[in-house]
Amino acid sequence: MYEFVLYSRKGHTDGQFKTLLAGGRLDIVYQCIITSIFTSHGHRHDVKFHGFLNGPPKPPIHLEVDGDKLYDVRLDERTWEHILKKVLDGGSHAGILIKKESIQRFISDKAKSGVDIFVLEERGRNIKKVDFKDSAIFFLGDHIGIPKKDEKFMLRFGEKLSMGKQRYLAASCIDIINYTLDEHIFSKYNMKR
Amino acid sequence: MYEFVLYSRKGHTDGQFKTLLAGGRLDIVYQCIITSIFTSHGHRHDVKFHGFLNGPPKPPIHLEVDGDKLYDVRLDERTWEHILKKVLDGGSHAGILIKKESIQRFISDKAKSGVDIFVLEERGRNIKKVDFKDSAIFFLGDHIGIPKKDEKFMLRFGEKLSMGKQRYLAASCIDIINYTLDEHIFSKYNMKR
Repeated sequence: MYEFVLYSRKGHTDGQFKTLLAGGRLDIVYQCIITSIFTSHGHRHDVKFHGFLNGPPKPPIHLEVDGDKLYDVRLDERTWEHILKKVLDGGSHAGILIKKESIQRFISDKAKSGVDIFVLEERGRNIKKVDFKDSAIFFLGDHIGIPKKDEKFMLRFGEKLSMGKQRYLAASCIDIINYTLDEHIFSKYNMKR
Repeated sequence: MYEFVLYSRKGHTDGQFKTLLAGGRLDIVYQCIITSIFTSHGHRHDVKFHGFLNGPPKPPIHLEVDGDKLYDVRLDERTWEHILKKVLDGGSHAGILIKKESIQRFISDKAKSGVDIFVLEERGRNIKKVDFKDSAIFFLGDHIGIPKKDEKFMLRFGEKLSMGKQRYLAASCIDIINYTLDEHIFSKYNMKR
């Protein structure tokens, strides 16, 4: 199981927004859901996406999207605007969970489970040099970035990971990580993830 | 200069659609524009994106987005829905051109220029084994794929390129190619693209 975690500084924590952009850049959350989970004509059953939303009116909210349980969803933004409005206002959708939880609480639980934790950072270890295990969790920031205190907390349990010199969009980082993991698993086991 | 070309089978050729999804999967065109051109807090000045739209009412239309000339655009789908509706109905936007042109005509012109041409295909040469030059052009299909006759035409001038065993979304393929080119240029010249 691979997990991607986006820290969203301003993402709204109820469904009362006009568009994902206006909802505290929930468009970035949407983009990351797509690149975390979807492939051509399918989705990744070994991936969970987590968004930690810290905007009004009731932060923090933990949004979880489980690639194994999702079905029958389209990939365009309006579809996800509809889904996110619904679940943030208390509705339900297969594969999606909403809970009141802080990112530090989530990290503590993950650290106890022993899974490898990586925090994306330009000055980290290059992704090409990591011998990934069969599970790992990756923390990313949105356009504003992860608050220093939370990043410091993450790094008590994890290590900095770099994609090289270019600074990519969060959703593009996830594409690059998924690709690296695909290649890694294929070269290790001669099988598709 | 690197160029990405998406063949859109059903993408509408005027602005009279309700949403990008309803406009013959123009949401895929939008996603590919984002991953072709945008980085974190910037855009790639060495990239052009080309969409060949083959839907109603007046195919084919060649949509060109020039990363060097774009400015002041947001990355969410509604922003691009607005832009695409406007330019497809004859309006203008900095960095975007619309012309009546078939993909075969475009390929012929590119082939004459001598640029390296790659066509994405699972059974092609692995992207990791290619020594990319400082310019190249990459052809991709949408969810339906490139028509056989056009693919055959492309392959008279170009070569098949593979991303490995996984079948990625077109927009994710572009992220992987941009990442590979970033790494390639950095290792060749010790500089950022």
